[in-house]
Amino acid sequence: MDKKLNIIKEHESVVRSYVRNFPAVFTKAKGHKLWDEAGKEYIDFFSGAGALNYGHNDDHMKQKLVDYILDDGITHSLDMASTAKVDFIKKFQDVILKPRGLDYKIMFPGPTGTNTVESALKLARKVTGRTDIISFTGGFHGMTIGSLSVTGNSMKRKGAGIPLQNTVTMAYDNYVDDHDSLTYLERFLEDSGSGVAIPAAMIVETVQGEGGINAARFEWLKKLENICRRWGILLIIDDVQAGIGRTGTFFSFEAAGIKPDIVCLSKSLSGYGLPLSVTLIKPEHDIWQPGEHNGTFRGNNHAFITATASLDFWKDDSFEKEILEKSEIVREFLTNIVTEYPEIKGEVRGRGLMIGIASEVEGLAEKVAAAAFEKGLIMETAGPNDEVFKLFPALTIPKDDLKKGLEIIEESVKQLVKDPVTN
Amino acid sequence: MDKKLNIIKEHESVVRSYVRNFPAVFTKAKGHKLWDEAGKEYIDFFSGAGALNYGHNDDHMKQKLVDYILDDGITHSLDMASTAKVDFIKKFQDVILKPRGLDYKIMFPGPTGTNTVESALKLARKVTGRTDIISFTGGFHGMTIGSLSVTGNSMKRKGAGIPLQNTVTMAYDNYVDDHDSLTYLERFLEDSGSGVAIPAAMIVETVQGEGGINAARFEWLKKLENICRRWGILLIIDDVQAGIGRTGTFFSFEAAGIKPDIVCLSKSLSGYGLPLSVTLIKPEHDIWQPGEHNGTFRGNNHAFITATASLDFWKDDSFEKEILEKSEIVREFLTNIVTEYPEIKGEVRGRGLMIGIASEVEGLAEKVAAAAFEKGLIMETAGPNDEVFKLFPALTIPKDDLKKGLEIIEESVKQLVKDPVTN
Amino acid sequence: MDKKLNIIKEHESVVRSYVRNFPAVFTKAKGHKLWDEAGKEYIDFFSGAGALNYGHNDDHMKQKLVDYILDDGITHSLDMASTAKVDFIKKFQDVILKPRGLDYKIMFPGPTGTNTVESALKLARKVTGRTDIISFTGGFHGMTIGSLSVTGNSMKRKGAGIPLQNTVTMAYDNYVDDHDSLTYLERFLEDSGSGVAIPAAMIVETVQGEGGINAARFEWLKKLENICRRWGILLIIDDVQAGIGRTGTFFSFEAAGIKPDIVCLSKSLSGYGLPLSVTLIKPEHDIWQPGEHNGTFRGNNHAFITATASLDFWKDDSFEKEILEKSEIVREFLTNIVTEYPEIKGEVRGRGLMIGIASEVEGLAEKVAAAAFEKGLIMETAGPNDEVFKLFPALTIPKDDLKKGLEIIEESVKQLVKDPVTN
Amino acid sequence: MDKKLNIIKEHESVVRSYVRNFPAVFTKAKGHKLWDEAGKEYIDFFSGAGALNYGHNDDHMKQKLVDYILDDGITHSLDMASTAKVDFIKKFQDVILKPRGLDYKIMFPGPTGTNTVESALKLARKVTGRTDIISFTGGFHGMTIGSLSVTGNSMKRKGAGIPLQNTVTMAYDNYVDDHDSLTYLERFLEDSGSGVAIPAAMIVETVQGEGGINAARFEWLKKLENICRRWGILLIIDDVQAGIGRTGTFFSFEAAGIKPDIVCLSKSLSGYGLPLSVTLIKPEHDIWQPGEHNGTFRGNNHAFITATASLDFWKDDSFEKEILEKSEIVREFLTNIVTEYPEIKGEVRGRGLMIGIASEVEGLAEKVAAAAFEKGLIMETAGPNDEVFKLFPALTIPKDDLKKGLEIIEESVKQLVKDPVTN
Repeated sequence: MDKKLNIIKEHESVVRSYVRNFPAVFTKAKGHKLWDEAGKEYIDFFSGAGALNYGHNDDHMKQKLVDYILDDGITHSLDMASTAKVDFIKKFQDVILKPRGLDYKIMFPGPTGTNTVESALKLARKVTGRTDIISFTGGFHGMTIGSLSVTGNSMKRKGAGIPLQNTVTMAYDNYVDDHDSLTYLERFLEDSGSGVAIPAAMIVETVQGEGGINAARFEWLKKLENICRRWGILLIIDDVQAGIGRTGTFFSFEAAGIKPDIVCLSKSLSGYGLPLSVTLIKPEHDIWQPGEHNGTFRGNNHAFITATASLDFWKDDSFEKEILEKSEIVREFLTNIVTEYPEIKGEVRGRGLMIGIASEVEGLAEKVAAAAFEKGLIMETAGPNDEVFKLFPALTIPKDDLKKGLEIIEESVKQLVKDPVTN
Repeated sequence: MDKKLNIIKEHESVVRSYVRNFPAVFTKAKGHKLWDEAGKEYIDFFSGAGALNYGHNDDHMKQKLVDYILDDGITHSLDMASTAKVDFIKKFQDVILKPRGLDYKIMFPGPTGTNTVESALKLARKVTGRTDIISFTGGFHGMTIGSLSVTGNSMKRKGAGIPLQNTVTMAYDNYVDDHDSLTYLERFLEDSGSGVAIPAAMIVETVQGEGGINAARFEWLKKLENICRRWGILLIIDDVQAGIGRTGTFFSFEAAGIKPDIVCLSKSLSGYGLPLSVTLIKPEHDIWQPGEHNGTFRGNNHAFITATASLDFWKDDSFEKEILEKSEIVREFLTNIVTEYPEIKGEVRGRGLMIGIASEVEGLAEKVAAAAFEKGLIMETAGPNDEVFKLFPALTIPKDDLKKGLEIIEESVKQLVKDPVTN
Repeated sequence: MDKKLNIIKEHESVVRSYVRNFPAVFTKAKGHKLWDEAGKEYIDFFSGAGALNYGHNDDHMKQKLVDYILDDGITHSLDMASTAKVDFIKKFQDVILKPRGLDYKIMFPGPTGTNTVESALKLARKVTGRTDIISFTGGFHGMTIGSLSVTGNSMKRKGAGIPLQNTVTMAYDNYVDDHDSLTYLERFLEDSGSGVAIPAAMIVETVQGEGGINAARFEWLKKLENICRRWGILLIIDDVQAGIGRTGTFFSFEAAGIKPDIVCLSKSLSGYGLPLSVTLIKPEHDIWQPGEHNGTFRGNNHAFITATASLDFWKDDSFEKEILEKSEIVREFLTNIVTEYPEIKGEVRGRGLMIGIASEVEGLAEKVAAAAFEKGLIMETAGPNDEVFKLFPALTIPKDDLKKGLEIIEESVKQLVKDPVTN
Repeated sequence: MDKKLNIIKEHESVVRSYVRNFPAVFTKAKGHKLWDEAGKEYIDFFSGAGALNYGHNDDHMKQKLVDYILDDGITHSLDMASTAKVDFIKKFQDVILKPRGLDYKIMFPGPTGTNTVESALKLARKVTGRTDIISFTGGFHGMTIGSLSVTGNSMKRKGAGIPLQNTVTMAYDNYVDDHDSLTYLERFLEDSGSGVAIPAAMIVETVQGEGGINAARFEWLKKLENICRRWGILLIIDDVQAGIGRTGTFFSFEAAGIKPDIVCLSKSLSGYGLPLSVTLIKPEHDIWQPGEHNGTFRGNNHAFITATASLDFWKDDSFEKEILEKSEIVREFLTNIVTEYPEIKGEVRGRGLMIGIASEVEGLAEKVAAAAFEKGLIMETAGPNDEVFKLFPALTIPKDDLKKGLEIIEESVKQLVKDPVTN
C-alpha cells in the first residue's frame, strides 16, 4: 500500500485532495461499503460527493452494463442516435418527467456537472440577450471559468487567475440573522439606479453541499421563483448534488413547488458513478443552433445503460418513503449529538440525506471526519472553513449499517470532546 | 428506427448535431465498424471525432473492463487512490513518458477535453501571474467559457452570450500566403507599445482538427517554442484530438522535437471511448493548492482500466510503423483524388491519419460526406465553412477495409463530379 | 433666439440634454443669476450641477484671471511646473489641508471629475494588487468606462455597450427600511465562500447627488471606514459634487470624522467653472510611476489662478457659518412644503445646500422644475426616476434672493397641486 | 525657483512627469516662446504635446477671451445653449465642415481627448450592437479605462490594474518589414474560425504621436476604410494629436481621401490651450439617448470663444501653405541630420509638422532632448522606448525662429556625437 501511495505522491499533481484525507488505496466497493488493498472495510458516508446515491456497483445496473459490453453495444457515440440513448430518454420521460407534470427538452452537454452548468448559463444569456447571472453566497457550480464565475469559494475563484465576470452575488437564505435576504435582491432589481442589471438568470441550489449544507426554506425558493417571473429572469436549479433523491425526492425542488426554467443534473444520474449529465430546458427556451454547444463525451452509452436501469428506483413512491425514514433517523441522531455534546457548539443543517453538523469550534469538523476514518467510516467536510461534517450515506444503505455509521460518528465526537488536549 | 429517431426529435434539445448528418440509430460497434438497428454496416472513418483511435470495443480492453466490473472493482473514486488509478499512472510513466524522456506530473482535471484545457489555462496564469493567453486562428479547445475563449469558431464563440476575454488570437502557420505568421507574433511581443501583453501561455494544436485539418510545420512549432522560452511564456500543447497516435506518434509533437510545459490529453486516452483526461505538467510548474481545481468524475476507474490496457499498443514501435504505412496509403490516395478530379479544387491537408481534402467548391465536402454515408461510410467535415472532408479511420483498421473506405470516398467524389446538376 | 436653438438642433448631437429642459440661449451670468439672449433673468438653483458653488463670474477671481491673461501668463503647461500651479498647491496646503490635519499628496489627473475617479480606481488597484471595487447603489462617478463601472444608473451603464466589470455593488445607507445595509457588506467580506472578493477599494459619496440627494448617516460612514481598515481596503471619497462647501464644510466628510485614503475633487474646485480636478492621496499610497496616468489638460493654469483666489473663502470659518444659516433656511422651507402639500407625497433629503424633495408622485418633480423655469428659476431633478427636485443655489447667494427662489418653488408646487388636471 | 520646485516635489504626486525633463518653473508664454521664473527664454518645439498648434496666448484669441470675461459672459453651461457655443458650432460648420464636404453632428463629450475617445467607442458599440474595437500597435488614445483599452503602451496599460477588455490589437502600417499588415487584418475578418469577431469599430491615428511619429501611408488608410465599409465597421479617426493643422490640413485624414464615421478632436481645438473636445458623428450614427453620455465641463465657454476665433486661420488656404513650407524646411533639415551624423542611426519619421528622428542608439533621443533643453529648446521624446525625438513647433512660428530651433537640435546632436564618452 505504501508503495502505491508513493507512486501517487511522486507522479500525481499536488492538486490532489481527497487522497490526503483518506490515505488508503481502494480496490473494491459494493453498496455502501468500500475496501482498501489491505482488506480494511469502510462504511461510505461520502458516496462520491453525491455521485453514488444508489451505492457502489448496484447489481441490477451492473448486470445490464456487463451484458451491454459483452454484446459490443456501441460505447461512444457523441450525439448520434443509439439504442441505449433513446431508451434512456424515453424512460426518463416516462418515469421522471411525466409523472411530475414537467415538460423539458433534454440536452446532453458533456458528461460532468460543470458541462451542464456552462450550457445552462450560455442558454440563459442567449434566450434573454442579457449578460449577467445572479448567483448566491455559498454556491458551488463547477471549476471551469463559466461555472466558477457563479461559485462562491474564494480559494477556488482565485485559482482562475483572472477576474471572474458577468455575475452578481446575492445573499442565500438565512445569510444574515433575522433578515430576509430577498428584500435586498428585489430592491436591487426594482431600482434602476442600483448598478445591478436585470440578469439573464439566477442559478441556485436548493440545498448547498460544498457551501456548508445550507437548506433554503421552501418559501424563500418560491419567492425567488416569483421574482424571476416578475422580471423575465430564467431560474436555473443546479441539482447536480442535491438531485436524484438526495433530499428525498428525485428533484430537490419538488417539495418547494417551483418549476425551474432550466435544471442541471449530473453526479448520481448514471446511477453507477459513470460520467453523465443532462440539462433540462423548458421547450420555449430550447433555441440553440445545432452544435452551438457540444462535447466529445456527451454520448456515454455505458452511462445511458446504467442510468436507465437506475430509474427503476423511481417507478413508485417506495424509494422516496425509504429515504424519508432514513432521513428521520439521521436527523434525530444528529439533533441528539448537538444536544448531548454542547462542547462542539453544533448546529444541524440540511434536508433529507443531505445533512450534517456545523460546528463553531475551529477545526473540529475535520477532526471528527479524521477520527471516523480511522474507525472505518468515510465522511467529508464542507463549508467555507470546513466547519461542517457532512453525512452522505447511500440512499440504499440498510438501516442497520446506517446506524453503525452513526455510532462511529458519535464515538468520534465523544473521543474528541473527552480528550481535547491530544487532538 | 423511425420511431426512435422521433423520440430524439421530440425530446432531445435542438442543439443535437451529428444525428442530423448520420440519421440512423446505432446499436453495435466493433473495431472500425458500426451497425445500425436495421442491421446496416458502416465503415467508420469518423472514430468518435478522435476518441476511438483503437477502434470500437477492442477485445483486450473489453476483457479487462468486464473482469473489473464483475469483480466489483471501485468505479468512482474522485481523487482518492485506487488500484486501477495507480496502475494507470505507473504504466503511463513506464510506457509513455520515460521512453520519450519526458518528465511530467499527471493531473486528473475531470474526464473531458475541456476540463484539461481549463486546468491548463488556470495553471499557466497561476504560474506566471499573467492573465492573457495567446491562441491561434482555427484553434478548437472546448466549449466551457475558459476553453471557448481560446477557440476560434465564431458561431461557437457567440454561443457564450458574453464577450470572451483575456485571450489574444494570433495567426496559425500558413495563415497568409508566403508569410511567416510568427514574424508578427514576435514583433508584437518585442514592442512594448504593441498593446499585446506578454501572455501567461500559448495554447496550440500541432494539427488542427475542427479548424480544418491544418498541420503546422515542425520548424514553425520549434520557433514557437523558442519564442515561449525567450519570454518565459508557457507552451501548452492541446493534444486532445491530435494525440494518442493520430498523427503517427503517441504525442503529436514528438516529431517536431519540442517539449511543451503543459500537455492536454483526452479523447482516445481511455482507449475505449470512455471519458478520461489528463493534464501533464512539468514538475516545476506543479504549484496547485490541493483541490484548487477539481471535478466529480476525475477518478473514472473504468477508464483507468481500459487506458492501462491500451498502452500495450505502445510497448514497442510496431504500432507507429503500422500507422505510418496506412498514412502513406491514405495520403497517396487523396493526392490522386485531387489530381484526377480537378473539378473539386481540392487540397490535401494534415499529417498521419489526421488527414482530409479541403475543397474550394462551396458545399462539396458536405456532399461527399453525405454520399459516403449513403454508401456505408461515416466521415465528418471540418473547417470554418465545413470545407474539408476529414478521414479519421481507426488506427487499427486492416488495410483491406481502409482501402474499401477509400473506394467509397472516390465513388462519392466521382458521382458528385459527374452529376453536378442533381447534387 | 429661435434661430440659435435651431442651430443646436440641427448640428449638435441628440445626446444633448439640459438644453431640452432649459430651452433658452444664455449669454451672461453673475453670482446666482443668469440671463438669456432675450434679456430674461433667472435665479440659478442649479449652479452648474455643483460646479459653481461660488456663483458665476465672481469678481475677485475674475480680476485675477483677467490680469493673468493680459500678462500672458502661461495657459497650458501639462505637468511642467508653473508659477500658477505652485501657488495653488501651496495655498491648498496652507488653507485647506493643514488646518484640517490632512496629509495628502496632490495629483492632477486631467481636468474633470471622471479623470480623478479613474485615477483613484487605478491607484487603489495598484496599491492593493486587487481588482474589484465596491461601489454603492445610487452612486454616480462619471461616464468613462472605469468610472461608469462604479456608477449605478442603468441607462448610463447600458450606454457603455459592453459589460462593466471588476466592480461589486452594495447597498447605500437607508437602502432598505429598518435594516443596516453594512450588515450584509461585512458578512460578504467575512465569508470566504461569499463570492465577493476583498476589494481594492470602496468608492462612495457622502451625499449622492445624481442618485437622488441621499445623505449617508455619519455613523454609517464611520462604520464603513472601520470595515475598510479591518481588511486593508482603500476608502475613496468621491467629493466631486458634495465637496467644496456644498454640504457646509470644504470636504463633505469632515463632519463624519473620517479620513479617506483617496479623495476626488473637481466641479467647484476652480471656483470659476473652469475644468480642474485633483486626486488627493495619502502619502503612503503615492506609488505611481512617472506618467503612469496622465492627461493633456492636467495643467490648466487659468483654473489654477481662479482656484487659488477661491480659497480665500476658506481662510476663516465665516463662510461655513454662512452656508449653515442658509441651509437651515432651505431645510425649514422644504420641511414646510412637505407638510403643507401632502399631495406631493414628499420627503426632504440631503445635507447643507445639497438638498431637495423626493416625491412619490410620478413625474411631479420634473413638473415642478419646469414650472419654476417658466417663472425664472433654474433647478434640476435627480434620482433614478427623476423623482427628486434638487436645490443647488450658489453658496454665496444673498438670503433675499435665496428666499425669492424658494418662493418660486412654492408657487410652482402650489400651482401643480391646485391644478393637477392640466399638468 | 528651487523653492518652488521643492513645493512640487514635496506636495505633488510622484506621477508627475514633464517637470522631471524640464526642471524649470514657467511663468509667461507667447507664440512659440516660453519664459521661466529666472527669465530664461525657450523656443517651444513641444507645443503642449499638440495642444498649442497656434502657439501660446495668440493675441486675437486673447482679446476675444478677455472681452468675454470682462463682459461676464457665461463661463460654465454644461449643455445648455449659450451664445458662445452656438457661434462656435455655426463657424465650425461654415469654415471647417462645409468647405470640406463633410456632414457631421457635433457632440461635446467633456473637454479632453479621453472624453471624446470614450464617447466614440460607446457610440460605435451602440450603433453596431457589437462589443469589440480594433486598435493598432503604437496607438495612444487616452488614460481612462475605455480609451486605455485601445492604447498600446504596456506601462500605461498595466497601470489599469485590471485586464483591459473588448479590444483587439492589429498591426499598424509598416509594422513588419516588407509586408502589408492589412493582409492579416482582412484574413482575420474573412475567416469565421479566426477567433476575431467583426468589431464595432476600428480606431486609428493617421500619424501616431506617442507611438513614435509613425505616419500611415494614404493607401493603407484608404484600404482600411474599404475594409470597414465591407463589414459595416465604423471607422474612428482619433485626430486629437494629428488634427487641427499639425500635419498640414485641418483634419489629418484629408489628404488620404477618407471619410471617417466618427472623428475625435481635442488638444488644439480651443486654439488657446483650454480644455475642449468634440466628437464628430455621421448623422446616421447619431442615435444617442439624451444624456446617455455627459460630463460637467462639456460646456466650457471660454474655450468656445477662443476656438471660434482660432477658426479664422482656416478661412482660406494660406495657413495650409504656410505649414507646408515649414514642413519642408524641417524635413530637409532632419534628412540632412540623418545623413551627416550616421552615428545616430537615425530615421526621419512623420508628416507635416508632426515629425522627428527615430534613433537606434539606445538613450540617444532623450539625450538630444536634454541637451536641447539646456540650450533653450523644449522638445519631447516619443515611442515605446523613447527612441524618437519629436519636433512639434507652433504652426505659426516664424521661419527664422524655426531655423534657430533646428540649429539648437543640430548642435545638440553634434555635441553628443563628438563627445560620446561624457554623455
